[in-house]
Amino acid sequence: MDKIVALSKRRGLIFPASEIYGGIANTYDYGHYGVLLKRNVVDAWWDAMLQERDDVVALDSAIIQHPKTWEASGHLAGFTDPLVDCKTCKRRFRADHLDEARADADAHPDVRCGRRPSRLPGETDECELTEPRAFNLMFETSVGPVKDTGSTVFLRPETAQGIFLDFKTVLTFARRRPPFGIAQVGKSFRNEITPGNFIFRTLEFEQMEMEFFVPPEQAADWYAHWKQARMDWYAELGIRPDHLRLRDHDPDELSHYSSGTADVEYLFPMGWSELEGIANRGDFDLTAHAAASGKDLEVVEPDGRRYVPHVIEPAAGVGRSLLAFLADAYDEEAVEGESRTVLKLHPRLSPVKVAVLPLVRKDGQPELAREIHATLKRRMQAEYDEGGSIGKRYRRQDEIGTPWCVTIDHETLQDRTVTVRDRDTLAQERVAIDALPELLSARLAAPWRSPKLLED
Amino acid sequence: MDKIVALSKRRGLIFPASEIYGGIANTYDYGHYGVLLKRNVVDAWWDAMLQERDDVVALDSAIIQHPKTWEASGHLAGFTDPLVDCKTCKRRFRADHLDEARADADAHPDVRCGRRPSRLPGETDECELTEPRAFNLMFETSVGPVKDTGSTVFLRPETAQGIFLDFKTVLTFARRRPPFGIAQVGKSFRNEITPGNFIFRTLEFEQMEMEFFVPPEQAADWYAHWKQARMDWYAELGIRPDHLRLRDHDPDELSHYSSGTADVEYLFPMGWSELEGIANRGDFDLTAHAAASGKDLEVVEPDGRRYVPHVIEPAAGVGRSLLAFLADAYDEEAVEGESRTVLKLHPRLSPVKVAVLPLVRKDGQPELAREIHATLKRRMQAEYDEGGSIGKRYRRQDEIGTPWCVTIDHETLQDRTVTVRDRDTLAQERVAIDALPELLSARLAAPWRSPKLLED
Repeated sequence: MDKIVALSKRRGLIFPASEIYGGIANTYDYGHYGVLLKRNVVDAWWDAMLQERDDVVALDSAIIQHPKTWEASGHLAGFTDPLVDCKTCKRRFRADHLDEARADADAHPDVRCGRRPSRLPGETDECELTEPRAFNLMFETSVGPVKDTGSTVFLRPETAQGIFLDFKTVLTFARRRPPFGIAQVGKSFRNEITPGNFIFRTLEFEQMEMEFFVPPEQAADWYAHWKQARMDWYAELGIRPDHLRLRDHDPDELSHYSSGTADVEYLFPMGWSELEGIANRGDFDLTAHAAASGKDLEVVEPDGRRYVPHVIEPAAGVGRSLLAFLADAYDEEAVEGESRTVLKLHPRLSPVKVAVLPLVRKDGQPELAREIHATLKRRMQAEYDEGGSIGKRYRRQDEIGTPWCVTIDHETLQDRTVTVRDRDTLAQERVAIDALPELLSARLAAPWRSPKLLED
Repeated sequence: MDKIVALSKRRGLIFPASEIYGGIANTYDYGHYGVLLKRNVVDAWWDAMLQERDDVVALDSAIIQHPKTWEASGHLAGFTDPLVDCKTCKRRFRADHLDEARADADAHPDVRCGRRPSRLPGETDECELTEPRAFNLMFETSVGPVKDTGSTVFLRPETAQGIFLDFKTVLTFARRRPPFGIAQVGKSFRNEITPGNFIFRTLEFEQMEMEFFVPPEQAADWYAHWKQARMDWYAELGIRPDHLRLRDHDPDELSHYSSGTADVEYLFPMGWSELEGIANRGDFDLTAHAAASGKDLEVVEPDGRRYVPHVIEPAAGVGRSLLAFLADAYDEEAVEGESRTVLKLHPRLSPVKVAVLPLVRKDGQPELAREIHATLKRRMQAEYDEGGSIGKRYRRQDEIGTPWCVTIDHETLQDRTVTVRDRDTLAQERVAIDALPELLSARLAAPWRSPKLLED
């Protein structure tokens, strides 16, 4: 994990937010390549969930919804972490992290009480812990001109509830009948104490959620469908199958409203952890909002049959997916006697698809390289780089996962051919400039398997 | 405006958030076509600001930044609205809206005190107003386990400050030297009392901001460049020139740090209003954050020269742009003896580029239409619709601004040609199925002028 964090910082992909002011816990900013990578992850999700299907529509609901939303959804009463107080140092800790923290503290005996919430001094006498108490994870704020007369509202802890609130509006105006889905990508906020695994869990985080509304008798089949579809999505984007598993929740893990939940888990650097949850939520949410709002949220079929649809929810996190893609792609190799760091990302996810590099900064090479760059960037994210030795420039592109480097050399000026270097095989081939755009477009669209699969 | 609001609701583009709970003031959700339209606006901005240039990089900074950010930026002390209290009804009003509200109240004498903040009862005796007091517009919340021990933080009121905080990181890791820009799209939050012009001003809103860092002596030239570039962007996306103007701020309107600000204004249904601000911010922000953080935010040139760059900021709002595009495109026409509502959007912005419509639901037409739809949607947003008469389906597509409708009829089955109907000219032409993808791609990429320009 340290290596991924270091690379992310070094290449300006992802780094701590507000760093010049000492940062803010579990909050990160995305730099240039990070933004491009994130957009590619989100686009891949939209394509799979919306573009390639005809039964899903898009939604973008507000972050601040009416406070009754969270009363009805159960978040106000139940969306809590168990916290314990230390009577000595007055700090608070997550009760469910205590065992983990104690083990960690044993391994780091110099860490003192309360310095870092995730590291307790285990068996020393310094801390005296209270019984756990429930602490709500929603951020609270106030709408209206004055704090004491304004209305208390919450930043959404999940995007899903906005979909449920708008279900009837979508049903009415999008001319849909179950089975159909409503998909949304957007930020959610949770005031969590976390052990800080980089972008695995952050205070604000982008979710990719879809609520798929079905007639009750079809719920089991659609649940099975979505579990498979979501596993496939990660695999098709290059995650190695042995780093991916589907874990059905035990009956005692299930939320009270859920008749089935499965986690897509990934073998993160810190161990197997949830990448995405797929839940069979039944009619819990729509029934709760119907009761709280007094609105009829039933579907009426042409034959007169009425029912509250059941809901299958695949809920993924952008940051978490991105971390899995980074971890799975990260590699260090010996190349030509030197070590190189390379992100073997699916080309579709790579922030830059092609780098255009003049071998030397003279003889008309930069000018021609810029021409080629201008042509290529009309089709795909392309970068021009003339700074430093060619080896150094290859390493820079390897580090951000650029699948192809196009090099312009003295031959190029004579025969209008360039070298295309492949990030993974390191093969170099000579290609005519005119054939380049089509060639790279075709490679970008082709199916792809992680080269690490072949190595393993 | 009422017509745009009604159309947005009717076709599920944009509608009030949390509507089943009575809504929340000045907050809207975007439905399917609204999301697609919004993505197209944002993509057009990214293309112009980043993709078509080589001197701008992307950033996505956190919504919750360190609270010192807003101390240094001046927002904590100065980002306020003047509010007056009514001693009788205890409500608060924006002092700078009083004149407007009084005029409005005169025209609506039945509106009673305090019912709606924007409508005061003018000259009656009911309200007794205090002197104006400053009220901060930032939403406040608390990070950490308990409200009273947690840190007070704010939801960002603009995305710009995140760019300034990360300036040095980008400078270091993106290997850039001024002139270069950092662009960001993201949500900001302002706790405003507004007169409610649909999505013109909302509590949470998406900004498209770019900070362009330049050597001080180049600031005037780059300021002129960006004013023109931003005007051109709206014009190229079809806004009629007579609905667009650039207004330089008078010296007494300027912020204390600004040596020049201009508004791109659009003739909204409620009159000329700001669409985008372009400001020459000088070195105010970087100097303020350098002083508050103790960090060196200077640029060092290869020749040893050191300076704090000056900043040109084009700051646009997604919702506001979208409202301008909708307003400019909205039309009602008499067609074939009936009236039609049509959005004459730039095809690039249209949520759906092409609708595929079988004339009848038999004789193999739906099957062939679905095939054509599947082919087209690999290239562009395409929709299949078989519900209702062909005239009704054309009207539905007109209402969401779909530039082309492809109709499959009995001839199609014989000679594999279809009809392509043009939204604006209503011309219908016969085209071979095989030629369709290339034809539509070419039309989509072609330059476009609002057909309303020709009519006027």
